[in-house]
Amino acid sequence: MKLFKTRFLIFENFTILKLDADDYSIMNAAYFDGEKMIFDENYLEPNSDETLVRVNLAGICGTDLEIIQGYMKYAGILGHEFVGTVEKSSNSELVGKRVVGEINVGCGKCYSCEKGMERHCPNRTVLGILKRDGAFAEFLSLPEKNLHIIPDSITDEQAVFVEPLAAAFEIKEQVSLQPQWSVAVVGDGRLAQLIIQVLKLTCSNITCFGRHKSKLESLVNGGTKIKIGIAPTDEQSFDLVVEATGSNSGFSDAMKLIKPRGIVVLKSTIASKENLDLTPTVVNEVTLIGSRCGLFKPAIDALASGIVSVDSMVDSVFPLKNFSEAIEHAKKPDTLKVFLKP
Amino acid sequence: MKLFKTRFLIFENFTILKLDADDYSIMNAAYFDGEKMIFDENYLEPNSDETLVRVNLAGICGTDLEIIQGYMKYAGILGHEFVGTVEKSSNSELVGKRVVGEINVGCGKCYSCEKGMERHCPNRTVLGILKRDGAFAEFLSLPEKNLHIIPDSITDEQAVFVEPLAAAFEIKEQVSLQPQWSVAVVGDGRLAQLIIQVLKLTCSNITCFGRHKSKLESLVNGGTKIKIGIAPTDEQSFDLVVEATGSNSGFSDAMKLIKPRGIVVLKSTIASKENLDLTPTVVNEVTLIGSRCGLFKPAIDALASGIVSVDSMVDSVFPLKNFSEAIEHAKKPDTLKVFLKP
Repeated sequence: MKLFKTRFLIFENFTILKLDADDYSIMNAAYFDGEKMIFDENYLEPNSDETLVRVNLAGICGTDLEIIQGYMKYAGILGHEFVGTVEKSSNSELVGKRVVGEINVGCGKCYSCEKGMERHCPNRTVLGILKRDGAFAEFLSLPEKNLHIIPDSITDEQAVFVEPLAAAFEIKEQVSLQPQWSVAVVGDGRLAQLIIQVLKLTCSNITCFGRHKSKLESLVNGGTKIKIGIAPTDEQSFDLVVEATGSNSGFSDAMKLIKPRGIVVLKSTIASKENLDLTPTVVNEVTLIGSRCGLFKPAIDALASGIVSVDSMVDSVFPLKNFSEAIEHAKKPDTLKVFLKP
Repeated sequence: MKLFKTRFLIFENFTILKLDADDYSIMNAAYFDGEKMIFDENYLEPNSDETLVRVNLAGICGTDLEIIQGYMKYAGILGHEFVGTVEKSSNSELVGKRVVGEINVGCGKCYSCEKGMERHCPNRTVLGILKRDGAFAEFLSLPEKNLHIIPDSITDEQAVFVEPLAAAFEIKEQVSLQPQWSVAVVGDGRLAQLIIQVLKLTCSNITCFGRHKSKLESLVNGGTKIKIGIAPTDEQSFDLVVEATGSNSGFSDAMKLIKPRGIVVLKSTIASKENLDLTPTVVNEVTLIGSRCGLFKPAIDALASGIVSVDSMVDSVFPLKNFSEAIEHAKKPDTLKVFLKP
């Protein structure tokens, strides 16, 4: 939407910039001001050399809920799971294409960027997470190289899962999975369920330790063993444990389950800071691997070929302006993926 | 020494066993009663089917000092670094041979023991550390398979370093070291110095972050860079960090130094339980590897061939009965390896 009236931008140093009508457009956006979520119909559209993407659908992720609790001290438009249509790009072939986007934008100059690991650039911005407006809006912008065209066989709802599914595939990048391994996943939420699907591509003996009967039951059909609570016979009996609870309790549970010399993959960024004890890690020579974002290509390929299915994880779609209601719904323990439609 | 007088053993259930003179012998031993160290001239000699070893020389290790602080709730004869001479064995060829011994004794039946990892057996005993009398005595016993004959070219003092040197070589078992890596070792104590020597067999670019000028200076001659305190330019600049401080501060320092996607080897069993934060591990996708005891063969080979030298780490030898004085000396920050001679 173009706004045909005079608008002023007031900067921190009290410089006042009068914007001409052609300089800017405005859009609907749901942003976090550092304390609370606000819906704004007059948010400035992204205006940069990057590719402009009209958001078709965005997903609410556990990280969004954590940011709203004050985690990461982020302020700006939330949302990093999305599918959209390219509106404007220096690459004319991209315009009109349906895309998803890698969320980390590196400086392009540092050691990590040179190694192709923009997601570890110390000066990076991260869509909807760190110094970069996100996807809970009509438009977002990203560098062209972050974008991946989505094949027609993948629906919008499925495409929104590319980002979290890439985070699940990251485990395969980091660990050389062995088919004969006994594997435990701690947590039964959205990410845990994607992780289980990815692990099942290599390992057949998987047990999910969860808390929510309804979520666990959906796994049984896929051949995953489910357990609520750790029995003495479960202790030190898994070759690989993936901690994906998103909560404080996951680490100690993972350490109970892992065999000596086993591998624990840590997915939760808010692992407990209290009563955390690394002594068993040393005594039992456990390897802990921190695991965050992954590359998008294997996730897109898996959705396109159907070896991973996310349809049973779709919960509900809310209009963007009803973001409050959507977030409250996403917070409930039994909710799966909630979408926002701008 | 044989004791020719009647001696009684009183068990917890008040059974009283009268021992005949031929049933037992007594020896000098320095043991920890759970609260304090005691020197006993009438400690019962080991009496089992295991191989009996007369201790020539034992080393005082950081773990011994931690046990005396109450760590591991161990009570019994301390000491797990030793060289001795076989006094009695079912294998007659072993009698009279000079040996060192792997300190973990497994149950022989469990998953870990079947994999040759007795040191991770959940029912293991550990010489001088867990349910098994140690080396600060005239005699100790171990299963024959734990013992390794020491070649004549290795002195007693050098041989005592086999156990901690094996713990240093364990890093090479766990991590595929790359010659071009930039490596940091956090800590400048006895174990850290052995680790640096082992790492130098593969990596040339090693920096030691320590606290004790005298210890650090001894490393300079070997080509190791030394630093007291972490400068901003050191942060996130190492491919591999080995945490070997034996103290609470090491973990956070190691996490400051490691590059995203780097490897941190954890050697300290008393890592901080307070303010320990695993979030950077996840965000920066760091791999943490707990590392404890190692196999003895590479350590013996390294000492025999001279590729590792421990002579500059020898501090002083105390008679066993002067164990108190020896321990006080070992506690001083500038002391290197202190030995006890039974």
